Amino acid sequence: MSNNYNYAFLFYDIGEKRVHKVFKICKKYFKHHQKSVFRGNITPANLIKLKNELKKVIDEDKDFVTIIKLLNRYTFEEETLGKDIKQSESLIF
Amino acid sequence: MSNNYNYAFLFYDIGEKRVHKVFKICKKYFKHHQKSVFRGNITPANLIKLKNELKKVIDEDKDFVTIIKLLNRYTFEEETLGKDIKQSESLIF
Repeated sequence: MSNNYNYAFLFYDIGEKRVHKVFKICKKYFKHHQKSVFRGNITPANLIKLKNELKKVIDEDKDFVTIIKLLNRYTFEEETLGKDIKQSESLIF
Repeated sequence: MSNNYNYAFLFYDIGEKRVHKVFKICKKYFKHHQKSVFRGNITPANLIKLKNELKKVIDEDKDFVTIIKLLNRYTFEEETLGKDIKQSESLIF
């Protein structure tokens, strides 16, 4: 049985010409982001869609997108030093 | 029983004046990084040391550092689109 990953972190380094497009694609699938790090619940089906959209936009020789897949929100613990990101996130959305 | 987290991702948004110091601290504890994302095995004891060092440097009103703690390397799966980061990492170190 293969694992069903339902939570993901995504971060990238994308050339300036393409970064806005990549940002827009990622924002469709993830609620939370800060700088070039996105994260949130995502179904395996949506993860495939997301990857297909990204593949059409990125330059495979220059850019990268790393996706860290986790079973669910409870397989990790989060800690933040400094200002409360949750608060600034809610100002953005 | 509390969980023993032994793997972590760390990402930050730090003011220009302090970012180099923060980068240097994180590099002491983590082998791999790309842009402002670090990750790797880290003992609970080292995680505490890292946080204490960071707290001395960051401006709590302006900066943030998020640490995602995982039990081990096998609780997540990783996928990369685009260029091979592992390769570019080995060029840096």
